[in-house]
Amino acid sequence: MSSTAGQVIRCKAAVAWEAGKPLVIEEVEVAPPQANEVRLKILFTALCHTDIYFWEAKGQTPLFPRIYGHEAGGIVESVGPGVTAFQPGDHVLPVFTGECRECRHCKSEESNLCDLLRINTDRGVMLTDGKPRFSIKGKPIYHFLGGSTFSEYTVCHVGTVAKINPAAPLDKVCILSCGMSTGLGATLNVAKPKKGQTVAVFGLGAVGLAAAEGARLSGASRIIGVDLNPKRFNGAKNFGVTDFVNPKDYDKPVQQVIVEMTDGGVDRSVECSGNPQAMISAFECVHDGWGVAVIVGIPGKDAEFKTHPMKFLHERTLKGTFFGNYKPLTDLPGVVEKYMNKELEVEKFITHSVPFSEINKSFDYMLNGEGLRCIIRMEG
Amino acid sequence: MSSTAGQVIRCKAAVAWEAGKPLVIEEVEVAPPQANEVRLKILFTALCHTDIYFWEAKGQTPLFPRIYGHEAGGIVESVGPGVTAFQPGDHVLPVFTGECRECRHCKSEESNLCDLLRINTDRGVMLTDGKPRFSIKGKPIYHFLGGSTFSEYTVCHVGTVAKINPAAPLDKVCILSCGMSTGLGATLNVAKPKKGQTVAVFGLGAVGLAAAEGARLSGASRIIGVDLNPKRFNGAKNFGVTDFVNPKDYDKPVQQVIVEMTDGGVDRSVECSGNPQAMISAFECVHDGWGVAVIVGIPGKDAEFKTHPMKFLHERTLKGTFFGNYKPLTDLPGVVEKYMNKELEVEKFITHSVPFSEINKSFDYMLNGEGLRCIIRMEG
Ligand SMILES: NC(=O)c1ccc[n+]([C@@H]2O[C@H](COP(=O)([O-])OP(=O)(O)OC[C@H]3O[C@@H](n4cnc5c(N)ncnc54)[C@H](O)[C@@H]3O)[C@@H](O)[C@H]2O)c1
Ligand SMILES: NC(=O)c1ccc[n+]([C@@H]2O[C@H](COP(=O)([O-])OP(=O)(O)OC[C@H]3O[C@@H](n4cnc5c(N)ncnc54)[C@H](O)[C@@H]3O)[C@@H](O)[C@H]2O)c1
Ligand SMILES: [Zn+2]
Ligand SMILES: [Zn+2]
Ligand SMILES: [Zn+2]
Ligand SMILES: [Zn+2]
Repeated sequence: MSSTAGQVIRCKAAVAWEAGKPLVIEEVEVAPPQANEVRLKILFTALCHTDIYFWEAKGQTPLFPRIYGHEAGGIVESVGPGVTAFQPGDHVLPVFTGECRECRHCKSEESNLCDLLRINTDRGVMLTDGKPRFSIKGKPIYHFLGGSTFSEYTVCHVGTVAKINPAAPLDKVCILSCGMSTGLGATLNVAKPKKGQTVAVFGLGAVGLAAAEGARLSGASRIIGVDLNPKRFNGAKNFGVTDFVNPKDYDKPVQQVIVEMTDGGVDRSVECSGNPQAMISAFECVHDGWGVAVIVGIPGKDAEFKTHPMKFLHERTLKGTFFGNYKPLTDLPGVVEKYMNKELEVEKFITHSVPFSEINKSFDYMLNGEGLRCIIRMEG
Repeated sequence: MSSTAGQVIRCKAAVAWEAGKPLVIEEVEVAPPQANEVRLKILFTALCHTDIYFWEAKGQTPLFPRIYGHEAGGIVESVGPGVTAFQPGDHVLPVFTGECRECRHCKSEESNLCDLLRINTDRGVMLTDGKPRFSIKGKPIYHFLGGSTFSEYTVCHVGTVAKINPAAPLDKVCILSCGMSTGLGATLNVAKPKKGQTVAVFGLGAVGLAAAEGARLSGASRIIGVDLNPKRFNGAKNFGVTDFVNPKDYDKPVQQVIVEMTDGGVDRSVECSGNPQAMISAFECVHDGWGVAVIVGIPGKDAEFKTHPMKFLHERTLKGTFFGNYKPLTDLPGVVEKYMNKELEVEKFITHSVPFSEINKSFDYMLNGEGLRCIIRMEG
């Protein structure tokens, strides 16, 4: 056991005190893990758009002060009473959704929506006792998505932490803990294009480009990238994207543009923007008879999906997915192995890197639509 | 060749002169079949709700005078020039959607939405020359769904006519030409429940009860029937329906009632009412993680399907289907064989029978929600 085991750790964390305001690096107290919990030393973390939504708290339930961050890699510092699945020193990726291995979902082959540990954007406390493990001078600071990885140390439920190959470089594979696996799995596990089929991807951030990567791995003949931000288009070529559509360049709905480009519609589409209009377009641009559309983007509280039911009658399918339908504990180590075996390129998703003290820069990069993932180095 | 081959036939047909007005039995002229066409002597036909919608023409494109009817059985009277796939005397079922066997859909295993011959509710003429084959004293009378089976003789495209076992009793298997196959296929081919799963069916007309029959054949553990008409509930027991829900009996949305009854939702649902609210409920009542909902009912022109996209994110699937995804020419003869082998009961769907002269009674039965299918005997 480390010398800090069982004790409160004082460390640096980037605290969001208010919606939309820059994070402030503070000294926080991190309580020891309880039953079913582990405390992690975070080494590398990255910003995902889901952090941005809840930090902006537009139309979401606001919960402040809070520590954001959920895409990360770290090392187990200590384990709670009775925890045997982990040992200090284990290399791990925390995930925003979990696996209890006992509920109907965990036992089903089809679902990764664990009844106990599925994504819960409103909860800011630990399940064990309904309290946060973070505080500043006794004042509670709330958790986010079971991760709160914008902190040198954090406490997670054991069911949301995947133990991975210790040889995997955490500064790279940390981004497999959310965005990349989500996009990749959305294509490989849910949209499932056949070799030679056409795929449209809406939103060319890291999630969307990982979806495109999945399409490329599936042998798609044509990958149409859709984004409102023209800066996204250059880089996208490295991800197998063959055609680009900016909805702003047309007077007609983008789904119509795509239907015309593809003589009836794409075979598969994957929506990775979070914009409800993009979700509708992604559905309506798939080919009748066999087209499948998959929603990945996280919509706002008041978002609405609207279409004419005849679009479904014409034998189109619409699905959605969290974390690309990967079961986090069971499947994520295998995704890391794909990187180790060079089946998967992770480096090209990493466009920036900053020391922890400059974490707010990573927010600027994402808000300006510059780059894909910015690695935040905790010991920088 | 019959003595009428190549000649105009004068016969009785039930003509709809105006939206929503009783049909009038008239003497019509039926022109001989052209290239790619056959002329059928209809022996038995039945009323499907799709006839009712277009006859009521509420929010649909009205086209009158028209001969409705598309669920039927008959015998080939004569064939058009160059037609070799049929001979006079063949026993056939006309279908509202067709199969050219050459387009991408016909060549795809997944789709039955033939580019050339798919359902087209607006077309009232033959494809060959853009003209109707029916007239009264030279005035054109329009076709409906490629069938117009409320006539002693009708002309159909060869791609919409399934040749079946001549031993099959046409007064029974005629209802396999639309409603029954549609409901059955929606469950067996599209919703695909696994043994032991739960299934909800919205709308307990012939289509919905055939969907329930499909659920029973799949080994569903529980089949929840939903209908606004309490008269539907007694008969439904004969179709394997185990639980009944009338949305009118509750203050809360019916999807919530079903979610509570089933501890989280049904595994599959099939919507067979045509009501957009029922489509939304059918989708929202399926279990997260793996639930699949299928839309079968034909919605009005201004119908809207609306839901929060988060319902999809929680790994629910929504699909739609025409004709239960059966390819009409390829698959329908096999469905008839299921009846011949006693795998499928058809008789229990037939609750009434009237001579052709009393065809308007079958409209009353359906409008009053009495019974399921009423066989109209052309030679009665
Ligand atoms: N379902 C899940 O499990 C899961 C997991 C991680 C992230 N997400 C969600 O995936 C989405 C993408 O995340 P990211 O980190 O890649 O974000 P990002 O901000 O890097 O990328 C989003 C892209 O979408 C584009 N966009 C916005 N509106 C658009 C529109 N109407 N049409 C086309 N493109 C549009 C933006 O310009 C941007 O390039 C977010 O909504 C995020 O919350 C979902
Ligand atoms: N997709 C296809 O290929 C296809 C083929 C044939 C028929 N259809 C459609 O299937 C539907 C059913 O046809 P049918 O001949 O069995 O009709 P039907 O009139 O015999 O049965 C429809 C039933 O739905 C019930 N209903 C109406 N609103 C409802 C609601 N909100 N909730 C629950 N139940 C409700 C009615 O009370 C009735 O019992 C129609 O919409 C028809 O147009 C589709
Ligand atoms: Zn994320
Ligand atoms: Zn679980
Ligand atoms: Zn019908
Ligand atoms: Zn075809």
